[in-house]
Amino acid sequence: MNFDLSPELLELRDRTRRFIAEQVIPLESDARHDSHGPSEALRRELIERARAAGLLTPHASTSMGGLGLSHVAKAVVFEEAGYSWLGPTALNIHAPDEGNIHLMEAVASEAQKARWLRPQVEGRTRSCFAMTEPSPGAGADPSMLATTAVRDGDDYLITGRKWFITGASGADYAIVMARMEDGTATMFLTDMNREGIRLERSMEAMDRCFTGGHGVLAFERVRIPASDVLGEVGKGFRYAQVRLAPARLTHCMRWLGQARRAHDIATAYARERQAFGKPLGAHEGVGFMLADNDMDLQTSRLHIWHTAWLLDQGQRGNFESSRAKVVCSEALWRTVDRCVQMLGGQGVTAETAVMRIFMDMRAFRIYDGPSEVHRWSMARKIVEASEGKA
Amino acid sequence: MNFDLSPELLELRDRTRRFIAEQVIPLESDARHDSHGPSEALRRELIERARAAGLLTPHASTSMGGLGLSHVAKAVVFEEAGYSWLGPTALNIHAPDEGNIHLMEAVASEAQKARWLRPQVEGRTRSCFAMTEPSPGAGADPSMLATTAVRDGDDYLITGRKWFITGASGADYAIVMARMEDGTATMFLTDMNREGIRLERSMEAMDRCFTGGHGVLAFERVRIPASDVLGEVGKGFRYAQVRLAPARLTHCMRWLGQARRAHDIATAYARERQAFGKPLGAHEGVGFMLADNDMDLQTSRLHIWHTAWLLDQGQRGNFESSRAKVVCSEALWRTVDRCVQMLGGQGVTAETAVMRIFMDMRAFRIYDGPSEVHRWSMARKIVEASEGKA
Amino acid sequence: MNFDLSPELLELRDRTRRFIAEQVIPLESDARHDSHGPSEALRRELIERARAAGLLTPHASTSMGGLGLSHVAKAVVFEEAGYSWLGPTALNIHAPDEGNIHLMEAVASEAQKARWLRPQVEGRTRSCFAMTEPSPGAGADPSMLATTAVRDGDDYLITGRKWFITGASGADYAIVMARMEDGTATMFLTDMNREGIRLERSMEAMDRCFTGGHGVLAFERVRIPASDVLGEVGKGFRYAQVRLAPARLTHCMRWLGQARRAHDIATAYARERQAFGKPLGAHEGVGFMLADNDMDLQTSRLHIWHTAWLLDQGQRGNFESSRAKVVCSEALWRTVDRCVQMLGGQGVTAETAVMRIFMDMRAFRIYDGPSEVHRWSMARKIVEASEGKA
Amino acid sequence: MNFDLSPELLELRDRTRRFIAEQVIPLESDARHDSHGPSEALRRELIERARAAGLLTPHASTSMGGLGLSHVAKAVVFEEAGYSWLGPTALNIHAPDEGNIHLMEAVASEAQKARWLRPQVEGRTRSCFAMTEPSPGAGADPSMLATTAVRDGDDYLITGRKWFITGASGADYAIVMARMEDGTATMFLTDMNREGIRLERSMEAMDRCFTGGHGVLAFERVRIPASDVLGEVGKGFRYAQVRLAPARLTHCMRWLGQARRAHDIATAYARERQAFGKPLGAHEGVGFMLADNDMDLQTSRLHIWHTAWLLDQGQRGNFESSRAKVVCSEALWRTVDRCVQMLGGQGVTAETAVMRIFMDMRAFRIYDGPSEVHRWSMARKIVEASEGKA
Repeated sequence: MNFDLSPELLELRDRTRRFIAEQVIPLESDARHDSHGPSEALRRELIERARAAGLLTPHASTSMGGLGLSHVAKAVVFEEAGYSWLGPTALNIHAPDEGNIHLMEAVASEAQKARWLRPQVEGRTRSCFAMTEPSPGAGADPSMLATTAVRDGDDYLITGRKWFITGASGADYAIVMARMEDGTATMFLTDMNREGIRLERSMEAMDRCFTGGHGVLAFERVRIPASDVLGEVGKGFRYAQVRLAPARLTHCMRWLGQARRAHDIATAYARERQAFGKPLGAHEGVGFMLADNDMDLQTSRLHIWHTAWLLDQGQRGNFESSRAKVVCSEALWRTVDRCVQMLGGQGVTAETAVMRIFMDMRAFRIYDGPSEVHRWSMARKIVEASEGKA
Repeated sequence: MNFDLSPELLELRDRTRRFIAEQVIPLESDARHDSHGPSEALRRELIERARAAGLLTPHASTSMGGLGLSHVAKAVVFEEAGYSWLGPTALNIHAPDEGNIHLMEAVASEAQKARWLRPQVEGRTRSCFAMTEPSPGAGADPSMLATTAVRDGDDYLITGRKWFITGASGADYAIVMARMEDGTATMFLTDMNREGIRLERSMEAMDRCFTGGHGVLAFERVRIPASDVLGEVGKGFRYAQVRLAPARLTHCMRWLGQARRAHDIATAYARERQAFGKPLGAHEGVGFMLADNDMDLQTSRLHIWHTAWLLDQGQRGNFESSRAKVVCSEALWRTVDRCVQMLGGQGVTAETAVMRIFMDMRAFRIYDGPSEVHRWSMARKIVEASEGKA
Repeated sequence: MNFDLSPELLELRDRTRRFIAEQVIPLESDARHDSHGPSEALRRELIERARAAGLLTPHASTSMGGLGLSHVAKAVVFEEAGYSWLGPTALNIHAPDEGNIHLMEAVASEAQKARWLRPQVEGRTRSCFAMTEPSPGAGADPSMLATTAVRDGDDYLITGRKWFITGASGADYAIVMARMEDGTATMFLTDMNREGIRLERSMEAMDRCFTGGHGVLAFERVRIPASDVLGEVGKGFRYAQVRLAPARLTHCMRWLGQARRAHDIATAYARERQAFGKPLGAHEGVGFMLADNDMDLQTSRLHIWHTAWLLDQGQRGNFESSRAKVVCSEALWRTVDRCVQMLGGQGVTAETAVMRIFMDMRAFRIYDGPSEVHRWSMARKIVEASEGKA
Repeated sequence: MNFDLSPELLELRDRTRRFIAEQVIPLESDARHDSHGPSEALRRELIERARAAGLLTPHASTSMGGLGLSHVAKAVVFEEAGYSWLGPTALNIHAPDEGNIHLMEAVASEAQKARWLRPQVEGRTRSCFAMTEPSPGAGADPSMLATTAVRDGDDYLITGRKWFITGASGADYAIVMARMEDGTATMFLTDMNREGIRLERSMEAMDRCFTGGHGVLAFERVRIPASDVLGEVGKGFRYAQVRLAPARLTHCMRWLGQARRAHDIATAYARERQAFGKPLGAHEGVGFMLADNDMDLQTSRLHIWHTAWLLDQGQRGNFESSRAKVVCSEALWRTVDRCVQMLGGQGVTAETAVMRIFMDMRAFRIYDGPSEVHRWSMARKIVEASEGKA
């Protein structure tokens, strides 16, 4: 057992840390934000800065132009990137592109990679992942998928509605999940400007860290050639798992960085601000919150590292990534909530970055499966695994 | 012991409930909101509707034009008003005006009442309460008050900075807390257009339910005649207590209404939305959240009722109102957080009213004393009261 | 609305408080305890003391020899009695006799009352309630009742096994729940010395506050005449509800007293014990625990009072008594756990009464329906009640 | 980074697991327990079994006759040993002997080792650690040490009282902490049968897993030669830290095993026991508890492993071992509490091992520093470390 990081990884970690501090955080107050998140113009500037720093799309394979990071290396680098809410955008490792890049590398054909993946790895394009649907379609329960794909000659016709589609506005291409006539699901690739695809509206959301916000998309008899099927027909649910287990974990990595930022801000405040005759941090009530934060941050980090290492060993890690997702989303939420509390009025206003982090992070307990769905999935496996044991 | 409400109070409750449902909730989606809260134009329309319904400023005395509600009656009516975030604005019972009206009735001279209170009770003007200061001034610890009042002939000259001043933008008058040369504190009344008062900026806040938002005010040698002292010189801290004990409780009442609204929305969703083969609400994991919400709502209501009754008996209720404030702010927060979780993606977007309630409510655990300050105040009293007991 | 207690009730409360302090607590260290609880000899002395104080069996009707307390009056008196773990035994209001007396008054025939109830109200006998069964019989789910009653001439033959039967050892009579051939359930009354009834063993339990402990009973073709059916044949489940709603609440009342005792002990310790330069209670970390205790105690009291008042109004109060049971069992448990923590090593040893209270109270979250069963029952009703609302 | 265990360690883990299952758990129901824990006779049998299995005193150095385990190896082996509450006694790694052996190896002279340590490593003797004192002496705050050591010729005279001295009854030797005339503290070694040492009584405790229970010791002018000072005069507090950082961690290891045992028992019960039409474990309310248990167990394991690895790197790990102690003591307590809840009535009776585990474990949140003291110590270091950062 060994918790050492290699010298190369330590160098990469420190370089990312400096990049975030010097090149990214100053842009947090840049005017080029809209009500949903950073604008495309701001995104492009961030991308160029990361490219110059040699940090762009580090999780992509080296053959595709990335750094080919292992899961453990991603754990270290993504935490640093997450320290600013613009960091993941800068490194091109924000959701959903980060997970889409991973999925495309694993499943797409060479032609598909050349057409869609390569420009995305270069930071020139963005994508979205169109799975979630309004009631009565697929929300937390993917089996309720209502968008249909009907074979028509060499093509498929896709019809349905999707919502909470992060990055939809301005995306260049989409991965669309649809139900086949035999009840299985398939993933389709399509440019976003194809006829029949319409962005109905952008949703007003609590978070504001995603370029393009969250859109509602209508698909009306969108014609997609069979050559644009991602992987094999009928394997949509399986690919969703291929995408989700690591995608859950990269969320944890980025949010760990955000929570650490909030904790650092609250700690500095507790050190400086006086109340009732001494610094806030010299009050046990505040000090205990700082200690709890430290415990929650380290607990999250250890779960991330352990699960990343399992994935690096070639394990699927479904159970462990569910567990890490619940642990991290709840521990980091508690952390940020305590930071708000320590900051008092400043915690609920834009006087510090903590308000934004708090508002951005609430959805973490919900997307990629709410805590309740993961707990239930874990429970079934725990009971099954206990058969024959006691 | 008796938990019955009088027939008159039941009628008033039901009338308020209908008013909120029919006259106020439809205006929640009115365009006349700005980034800080309802606009003054929207506020005026709400006031007129409440006046027509006979529900305007119900906590003011009948001689002043209100309904002269007891604390218990306020508990019942304010909960109903709070069901919409615009309800307190409509009934003229929003913070800080509600507490200011209470304080003015208790302490102001007849001339002061005629000049400032009567138009406010009529809904024609608004006020603010200027106590909180940026570091190193008075935050949670009022003894750190840094704004000064210096005697100058028959006047006082007030100098200092205040922030988190709710409703400052657009307010007609202010109650300003300042430190005297002898270290005591005094409250001053002043029109907001007096020379030397400047609104530096409005703060960007998580909440958006207060007309005028939260302002930063500079006071530069503001000249206030001695006749505009509120009550007696040197009694500022005492009056702050007169204002705070009931003001804490009316916060609880209004927020109880908001949390009940969120719970109703989540319950309806849990009843209708299907997942994994049955309605959400038929899943134990969701059902337990509904049960916990019900417990937290009822716990809050019982603490409010009991403390209101104590105040009606003439008790100061400082301990009990601190207790109610901590219990309610934490129980209602848990409730609204669970509602977000049950609603999934819709909980973190403006698809329902719950996101707004969640964002509006977070500050409740902070203002009028954060939970930590109240717990500490309670602890000291618990230990003192135990002397000689065991 | 009115939280006043009548002068008569205040007098009764204070008398009970003095009785517990002067007559009961000194017997807590009496040697006449066995490994399951107070011995029968100790119980008899306690009963005689309560009789002398005019406090015996106060919940029984006056015609039966009790004080005919209302539910609200019970709330006040039982809390006081619960201040000592021997108090309920002294006043003859301990489980299961308290609930059995209530059920017998409501359902038993005059002859049955004369035979079994009157001596019990006089404190001369004890009873048990035989419902819970080992797997695969009825635990938290009463519908799994496996003990059978088969008609045989004018009699019934009862066969089955029961466990966790509180007070079984030494009880004079039992109320036995059995399944009829048509699937309904019936309650039977029987002396414990009837042929076919056997106490297999006493269970080793965490609690030690019940005379007779918890027994495992075997019923082997126990012959019971039809005249000893309690109430009507086939109404067993309904009577269980008659018994349970108030019985849940009286548990809350007694445990509230116990938790208040623990809190008083911890408060005195926090006031006296020095650590790190000041009394424990002057540390925020400890003070916050005292404040949380006070909140939890008052929350419990308010739920008890409100539900008791509803029962006094003739309501069945099933929802509210479930709610009160969950709220109180969890709030009081948190309270006692904090007391252990504040007392440090003394909290986990018999140096104070708190260890005993902690061990006695853990079962409260389980019996009369674990929290999970009550939450689920509440959830179903919440969803049903919301139909047509939103 | 690497979470692999070496083949040798895996073999040792599996061997320990089998030993506990086959040789130790069957003795849990052995009659040779007294009211405080396993009897000396039972302890001796356990020791002989461990010796035969090659598992005795594995943390002692090989030169002393142990296996010379690293901290990481201890983490793995001690968790397995902890699976039975008799396991640590069997392997001679129970508190306080485990920590005393560690301290003696680090500090004692060769003569002291030969006299006291070697027979202890061989399992022939037991020891106690006499530091904690009744009020107003040293409890959680070691600086309040009241026991005095006064120089008298070549000897010291020790006078004072100690309590909560685990294993005192039947111990062969003690390490005694006393205050010097200059205010520093020194550790002394003494046989327990020395004149002036008296076991006043054994304390009645919630736990029953320690041979000898917890004693109250009086030291009355106990004459100890200077040659029996442990290490150097005046370094008592420093040695206490040497002992405590790893001792905290070995507590975590052993209790992790206990909690895992409780979780396994509860899981098996949830799989088998039916309620409301399906197995308990198929209810979300129970399934969520199983998932939470798994999260808490893994969180504890990761903190233990990480901190053990730091200690193996030669770091002092004071901050990290405090953190691990708080995390583990609270996470494992929650786990065992949930197991009680899932087991219902069986959780609060000796029908399964869980009741015993629950009662044994409560003190873990208190000894070796209650959570509150560790949180405060962490907070100070967090604030200090933040200086100059933000």
